[in-house]
Amino acid sequence: MNEKSLANWRESPAKQAVFDFVAAITDPTSPDYLSPPDRVAVFDNDGTLWTEQPVYAQLMYALDRAAELGHPTTLQELHQGGMPALMQLLTLSHTGMTTDEFDEACRRWLASATDPRFGRHYPELVYQPMLELLSFLAENDFSCWIFSGGGTDFMRAWATDVYGIPPHRVIGSVGETELRTGANGPELVKKGVQIVNDGAQKPSSIHRHVGQRPILAAGNTDGDLAMLQWSAAHPGRTLQLVIQHTDAEREYNYDRDPILGSGTAELYAAATADGWTLVDMARDWLTVHPPVATSAPVRA
Amino acid sequence: MNEKSLANWRESPAKQAVFDFVAAITDPTSPDYLSPPDRVAVFDNDGTLWTEQPVYAQLMYALDRAAELGHPTTLQELHQGGMPALMQLLTLSHTGMTTDEFDEACRRWLASATDPRFGRHYPELVYQPMLELLSFLAENDFSCWIFSGGGTDFMRAWATDVYGIPPHRVIGSVGETELRTGANGPELVKKGVQIVNDGAQKPSSIHRHVGQRPILAAGNTDGDLAMLQWSAAHPGRTLQLVIQHTDAEREYNYDRDPILGSGTAELYAAATADGWTLVDMARDWLTVHPPVATSAPVRA
Repeated sequence: MNEKSLANWRESPAKQAVFDFVAAITDPTSPDYLSPPDRVAVFDNDGTLWTEQPVYAQLMYALDRAAELGHPTTLQELHQGGMPALMQLLTLSHTGMTTDEFDEACRRWLASATDPRFGRHYPELVYQPMLELLSFLAENDFSCWIFSGGGTDFMRAWATDVYGIPPHRVIGSVGETELRTGANGPELVKKGVQIVNDGAQKPSSIHRHVGQRPILAAGNTDGDLAMLQWSAAHPGRTLQLVIQHTDAEREYNYDRDPILGSGTAELYAAATADGWTLVDMARDWLTVHPPVATSAPVRA
Repeated sequence: MNEKSLANWRESPAKQAVFDFVAAITDPTSPDYLSPPDRVAVFDNDGTLWTEQPVYAQLMYALDRAAELGHPTTLQELHQGGMPALMQLLTLSHTGMTTDEFDEACRRWLASATDPRFGRHYPELVYQPMLELLSFLAENDFSCWIFSGGGTDFMRAWATDVYGIPPHRVIGSVGETELRTGANGPELVKKGVQIVNDGAQKPSSIHRHVGQRPILAAGNTDGDLAMLQWSAAHPGRTLQLVIQHTDAEREYNYDRDPILGSGTAELYAAATADGWTLVDMARDWLTVHPPVATSAPVRA
């Protein structure tokens, strides 16, 4: 292993588990060896690869977009309005425009909006140790995929640049799209939600988009449990990583999804029962977010 | 260009168009140059990469499978029964089993069933010149994808081996899948059709699965028109290939999809209007199917 790999992971059982796993999968003399095309790794996004508190960045985008369109609402009103209010906001901010227009609006917002606590652009609130893990896996010929409850189109507006993961490997919730002819030829108009990519849907999405069982999966709430179990059922050696938010000082300390309300009890119970690898942010990471000095997140 | 590339393409405008296009896209000094991640090519499958007459192989699979399950029916009965009979057959043969069981059943069938006219296994009825095109594009760092009306799971049982295209780039019609816990852990049960990947759906599927506009698209019926138009609207240089079935002696001479009934009139009109490249099988290809001497298709 390159000694600089996982530089911002403290020496710990979690770091060792990653090193041992990658060594076993990539060593041609190992009984666990797999050729590069079979090295599929899947990651949740919100709370696993970047900060999801106090609410997902995508929801902040939706609120800002709604205000821009003359329909301002607050996070408090949204919480009070429950699921109907959330769906109304998502319809307003995520449908009725072309995929190109949506992408452009997201990119504009991402370049300007800042997180209230850290005062940084949202793509700078990715986890530096996880960027290093993605790079380490890519160097070892793993294909890293994102399977998130967030929107595919929203994530693709920044995830490829920030994580170094091509758009086709960034998969989330999706709506139907309608083909029409615009001024510049065919275009796709975004319609209502078709697939909410959470919980039991994640294995179905992995089957549809990858067509292979992953050997590594990482998540942080019960909404990721099915995905981790799906990877654990691969017949060869596998690794499951459970990111635990234990760091109120540098990030947040919580065990419940900020909006959908998924907890972590089932995930932690499965991790204990099946020997999955717990990643305790406070204990296992030297830093959480990339250094402020750089204007963009640093990939290892 | 490697002189051996496209060995079974006769010297013709079609072959030259492919060479010119690939040279322009890959030459760093060319105004049309694109870096490898942007070299996305999409292909229809039935009638574009392999023989679809007298009916799609997948339908032959469905008929054989139905007979195996004690519900024999004939192609003639199927034609008489129209869409309801077809859906009934697909439900019987394609749902109610796990994705692993379906994959295994397909592979067993593909290894034994033979085409009535050529007496060969279906995966041997791919087009040798198209295998060479796929190889030539891969050598030039293109990512080749299949977007077919055929079923994703059926295609993945053989397409990766035969075309050298990884499963995640083999996309067709799909059903919902339901996660359940079986004897060996989590498994996915195949349910009814959710997305019929033909016509206007193809650009939506490309957006969902690739997230980039393709620069090359190939098809053979009006069901592929939207996909070819979608690629043509890419702002850079693009190439559209229209495969014409003109060869009754070596394959078939027809201009209509064998089951769904899509014609070719709209596709050919667009090809003429927009200067797309016609590939006339009788005129442009030295061979159609791979040599019989080998037991498996030959990739160039």
